[in-house]
Amino acid sequence: MSTRPSKDLETFPNPNPQRDYTIRIDLPEFTCICPKTGQPDFAQFKIEYVADAQCVELKSLKLYMWSYREEGAFHEAVTNKILEDLVAATDPRFIRLTGVWNVRGGVYTTVIVEHRKAGWQPAPKVELP
Amino acid sequence: MSTRPSKDLETFPNPNPQRDYTIRIDLPEFTCICPKTGQPDFAQFKIEYVADAQCVELKSLKLYMWSYREEGAFHEAVTNKILEDLVAATDPRFIRLTGVWNVRGGVYTTVIVEHRKAGWQPAPKVELP
Amino acid sequence: MSTRPSKDLETFPNPNPQRDYTIRIDLPEFTCICPKTGQPDFAQFKIEYVADAQCVELKSLKLYMWSYREEGAFHEAVTNKILEDLVAATDPRFIRLTGVWNVRGGVYTTVIVEHRKAGWQPAPKVELP
Amino acid sequence: MSTRPSKDLETFPNPNPQRDYTIRIDLPEFTCICPKTGQPDFAQFKIEYVADAQCVELKSLKLYMWSYREEGAFHEAVTNKILEDLVAATDPRFIRLTGVWNVRGGVYTTVIVEHRKAGWQPAPKVELP
Amino acid sequence: MSTRPSKDLETFPNPNPQRDYTIRIDLPEFTCICPKTGQPDFAQFKIEYVADAQCVELKSLKLYMWSYREEGAFHEAVTNKILEDLVAATDPRFIRLTGVWNVRGGVYTTVIVEHRKAGWQPAPKVELP
Amino acid sequence: MSTRPSKDLETFPNPNPQRDYTIRIDLPEFTCICPKTGQPDFAQFKIEYVADAQCVELKSLKLYMWSYREEGAFHEAVTNKILEDLVAATDPRFIRLTGVWNVRGGVYTTVIVEHRKAGWQPAPKVELP
Amino acid sequence: MSTRPSKDLETFPNPNPQRDYTIRIDLPEFTCICPKTGQPDFAQFKIEYVADAQCVELKSLKLYMWSYREEGAFHEAVTNKILEDLVAATDPRFIRLTGVWNVRGGVYTTVIVEHRKAGWQPAPKVELP
Amino acid sequence: MSTRPSKDLETFPNPNPQRDYTIRIDLPEFTCICPKTGQPDFAQFKIEYVADAQCVELKSLKLYMWSYREEGAFHEAVTNKILEDLVAATDPRFIRLTGVWNVRGGVYTTVIVEHRKAGWQPAPKVELP
Amino acid sequence: MSTRPSKDLETFPNPNPQRDYTIRIDLPEFTCICPKTGQPDFAQFKIEYVADAQCVELKSLKLYMWSYREEGAFHEAVTNKILEDLVAATDPRFIRLTGVWNVRGGVYTTVIVEHRKAGWQPAPKVELP
Amino acid sequence: MSTRPSKDLETFPNPNPQRDYTIRIDLPEFTCICPKTGQPDFAQFKIEYVADAQCVELKSLKLYMWSYREEGAFHEAVTNKILEDLVAATDPRFIRLTGVWNVRGGVYTTVIVEHRKAGWQPAPKVELP
Ligand SMILES: [Ca+2]
Ligand SMILES: [Ca+2]
Ligand SMILES: [Ca+2]
Ligand SMILES: [Ca+2]
Ligand SMILES: [Ca+2]
Ligand SMILES: [Ca+2]
Ligand SMILES: [Ca+2]
Ligand SMILES: [Ca+2]
Ligand SMILES: [Ca+2]
Ligand SMILES: [Ca+2]
Ligand SMILES: [Ca+2]
Ligand SMILES: [Ca+2]
Ligand SMILES: [Ca+2]
Ligand SMILES: [Ca+2]
Ligand SMILES: [Ca+2]
Ligand SMILES: [Ca+2]
Repeated sequence: MSTRPSKDLETFPNPNPQRDYTIRIDLPEFTCICPKTGQPDFAQFKIEYVADAQCVELKSLKLYMWSYREEGAFHEAVTNKILEDLVAATDPRFIRLTGVWNVRGGVYTTVIVEHRKAGWQPAPKVELP
Repeated sequence: MSTRPSKDLETFPNPNPQRDYTIRIDLPEFTCICPKTGQPDFAQFKIEYVADAQCVELKSLKLYMWSYREEGAFHEAVTNKILEDLVAATDPRFIRLTGVWNVRGGVYTTVIVEHRKAGWQPAPKVELP
Repeated sequence: MSTRPSKDLETFPNPNPQRDYTIRIDLPEFTCICPKTGQPDFAQFKIEYVADAQCVELKSLKLYMWSYREEGAFHEAVTNKILEDLVAATDPRFIRLTGVWNVRGGVYTTVIVEHRKAGWQPAPKVELP
Repeated sequence: MSTRPSKDLETFPNPNPQRDYTIRIDLPEFTCICPKTGQPDFAQFKIEYVADAQCVELKSLKLYMWSYREEGAFHEAVTNKILEDLVAATDPRFIRLTGVWNVRGGVYTTVIVEHRKAGWQPAPKVELP
Repeated sequence: MSTRPSKDLETFPNPNPQRDYTIRIDLPEFTCICPKTGQPDFAQFKIEYVADAQCVELKSLKLYMWSYREEGAFHEAVTNKILEDLVAATDPRFIRLTGVWNVRGGVYTTVIVEHRKAGWQPAPKVELP
Repeated sequence: MSTRPSKDLETFPNPNPQRDYTIRIDLPEFTCICPKTGQPDFAQFKIEYVADAQCVELKSLKLYMWSYREEGAFHEAVTNKILEDLVAATDPRFIRLTGVWNVRGGVYTTVIVEHRKAGWQPAPKVELP
Repeated sequence: MSTRPSKDLETFPNPNPQRDYTIRIDLPEFTCICPKTGQPDFAQFKIEYVADAQCVELKSLKLYMWSYREEGAFHEAVTNKILEDLVAATDPRFIRLTGVWNVRGGVYTTVIVEHRKAGWQPAPKVELP
Repeated sequence: MSTRPSKDLETFPNPNPQRDYTIRIDLPEFTCICPKTGQPDFAQFKIEYVADAQCVELKSLKLYMWSYREEGAFHEAVTNKILEDLVAATDPRFIRLTGVWNVRGGVYTTVIVEHRKAGWQPAPKVELP
Repeated sequence: MSTRPSKDLETFPNPNPQRDYTIRIDLPEFTCICPKTGQPDFAQFKIEYVADAQCVELKSLKLYMWSYREEGAFHEAVTNKILEDLVAATDPRFIRLTGVWNVRGGVYTTVIVEHRKAGWQPAPKVELP
Repeated sequence: MSTRPSKDLETFPNPNPQRDYTIRIDLPEFTCICPKTGQPDFAQFKIEYVADAQCVELKSLKLYMWSYREEGAFHEAVTNKILEDLVAATDPRFIRLTGVWNVRGGVYTTVIVEHRKAGWQPAPKVELP
């Protein structure tokens, strides 16, 4: 059942493209290499998105995250890069990516990046009491 | 006292249709079959809605959720399907359905779907300090 | 020091009617009878209101909640009824009533009902950072 | 499906009397009347027991707890009384009853009562690291 | 090092009056006397304010809160009174005072009062994702 | 309904002296005066005891705790003194008193004092798995 | 990749039988049928064991738990039965099984069953401060 | 590997200046000297910012925070000063600095300061359900 | 009111030496210098002790902890050293010192050291159910 | 400042070998490869030990944990192996190693392994009330 890390993000057709709805995915097992120290970094990523024609396939997403295991990556740049790859693969109406990095030197860092499709507007939020 | 799973969602007349008010229902005991692996999936569902003429009856709702126990169901599609069945049964002013799925392959997934009746507007939210 | 349950909600004059301010009251000890099964139901109620000329007196409020101990009451209807009694007694600028019912049949239910006085507008919420 | 409060505690045969094992039951919905003030008191009860020949049947236990709804009861005395009724009904090898009473006058009270069958010894507790 | 309770609220010049910024102060040790029962009441107060020319000095604030220790005070009235004293002393751009009172008779009460200087507008809240 | 602080601790007969059982009482509203600074101190007290012939009456216990409101009291000494007064009033088989004091100077202090009646042995604790 | 529910519990050789060590396994996804009502029950199981020659294989354990999905099972009896099957498969030095059942009728139930191999003694627990 | 405290805040070029995104940094290890008492104060700082051309370098930020260790600093003034230094170094589109100070005299204080670049507008917040 | 750091630990006579009782002190504001990196370290210390003739005075304890602010200190050695200084100052019947150090390099370290007076035995712990 | 993963566990002399004391180390950033699936596994390790002549050096411990990043490792075997390497390097009086593995297939696994030096006895635990 072995599989390999891969930069390919596979998709499947959104089963309900007629409406905006939210998909949230939590990926607590991300690790890469710190380019400054050569040592491992660890982070937890969260995705929130509104799919358009395509949804991201979860197993390929897991292999994609795995693909950073041997790579050097700065916090800000890699969070932007993952967002861009998700956008390239699924062309979503909206997507937000949050990377929560483990403490280094007593400092905790979080990076949050968003993409919104041109012309897309979220429905006004209904806030029930 | 035995009862059977059923796709029938029964309703009762909204006792206070003259005002918008919120009903929240938490259903922590949902299980179905993963179409890809044939193995059981588990989720917790949350409903928030503003009833119009009809409210959903809780016992029939429980039997309805039970009816997925033997069925194959994809996360995104089944959350949309349950929303649509609730809309068909109760024709609510507004409804939001949230499905929080148990972890699979180290990945956590949540799907949130809403329906708003044509022309219905929520009262502006009063946010007391 | 014995007192009796009562449907009378007593009030006292709002000491500061010149300004809108918020009063929150939590009542964790509500119980009534389920009309379908004849068995006890339990709930926790929360009140948030902006008083006008009158505030609700807390001891009479406690006795009022006690008055449901022997009565049959459906979740949706009784939450609306309590709101209406509070409105009749205090004629508030705004009131929100939340009833959080104990689990039954694996299902958790919450009902939230509001009343706003005609013409009253909340001050815009100041959200300090 | 209506049922009535009752002091009868029904039992069923312990399916595995050949070994000591633990049954824990939480009953968060107890209410009675305070004999001093005539007002309702609320408590949460916890049972832990090692059955001998009989286990307590859960539905009858619920109806038994319900039977205190109209009765006056002091914290210490009623906790002892419930223990004694459970012992009379099931004659357990060991039982511990904990009653956690809601705050009154800014004071929180808990009462814990145990019964151990003559000659019964618990197996030494195995505390795995 | 002994000091005395006092109704004098001292201030110091706001070191940065050129910008709006938020100061939050939590005072968990408030006690006064219930005018109805003559017994002690306890509360926790929270202040949030945007200073104008003056900030409230913390030690005098502590002595001010202490000054209620021997006084009778109703929940709603005293929360309004403390707000007014803070306004008189510091003339802030905005202030919100929250009093969370300890449970009495199974009932929990919170009172929140605000004051906004004429003509002052909060900057639009920047909500980063 | 007004009552006064008092050093008298009233008792009532233990309704079940034939067995050892535990009574726990939490008193979160203690305040006295720091003898060094003259300023108020605040603490939360917890009592755990096994009554012999007498139980402590809760209302008199509340008035007793109130009696320290105007008194100077060192943390260690007053915790010992309260224990001794409880022992004098109820002559319990066992009692433990815990005083958790609010932070002063960045330092948090807790004092725990016990009394055991001569010759009394606790039953061996049954630790169910 | 589809697999089927099965009562077969597979094992693998304990890699370190020369020492006692603890293996804990949490299985939050158990469901079966209530024999009294015919409706689904849900529980979370926890295993703690000290292996002897064999460890339980995790995938087969998952399929074993799945095998109860269509079966009627009483709380006490099925917890004992699962323990016995685990003992038959792995013949452990010690095993403890805990089943935490979802609330029914406002009542929460937990069942804990243990097995200890004849003659096996746990090493005295080292409790470091 | 020793380094020294320093008021120099180093920066690196924002790798993705083409979009607004959020960087959050938590610094739980701040200490300075209270100018009134000469004793150490402790605080936790949180930064949230949207970078423009430059991001703050984390190691120099840590040394910068260290530079306050020997300095006297009032809560309100030093929070404003740190904000201004961060603005001078990175010229961000938006920055919010929160300082949560340890309790002194039973009083808890938090100071929150913001800076927004002239003409910069945050994108409307997308609040997915 | 300024005071200075000092290695002198002052004491006061134990007001109740006739009985063993527990004093717990939490000191969340410790900082020293890491001898390897020259950078600040932070820790939280907890003391639990049974006094003999002398108790440690809290203000001098605070100044003592402050005295490490400029000193280099290894985790294990300094925790042992503080224990020894507390023993030298108060000669307690029993003392336990716990130092919980802030994360460094992704690694969390805690050191716990105890001292027991020759011949002193703790009373057997009474564990009430 | 780059360093490399290594199986060498360095040590330093225990600064206080004359007494038993506890050192706890938490290592939340462990990852290795699952031998069955070839995919990454994640775990959190905890060490508790009583050093004899040598303590484990924290930086080398971090590099040691890193050394598993590319290796296949079964849960039970690798936890035993790490324990053995720590014992070989430091020859402690006592050591306990806990590995908490991330969920796989809905199953959570924890492995705890201990080593005690021949003839070493822990001091009886002093449990203060
Ligand atoms: Ca953060
Ligand atoms: Ca999984
Ligand atoms: Ca999620
Ligand atoms: Ca709910
Ligand atoms: Ca209690
Ligand atoms: Ca009360
Ligand atoms: Ca409240
Ligand atoms: Ca302080
Ligand atoms: Ca403490
Ligand atoms: Ca139920
Ligand atoms: Ca339970
Ligand atoms: Ca203080
Ligand atoms: Ca605060
Ligand atoms: Ca670090
Ligand atoms: Ca630790
Ligand atoms: Ca576990």
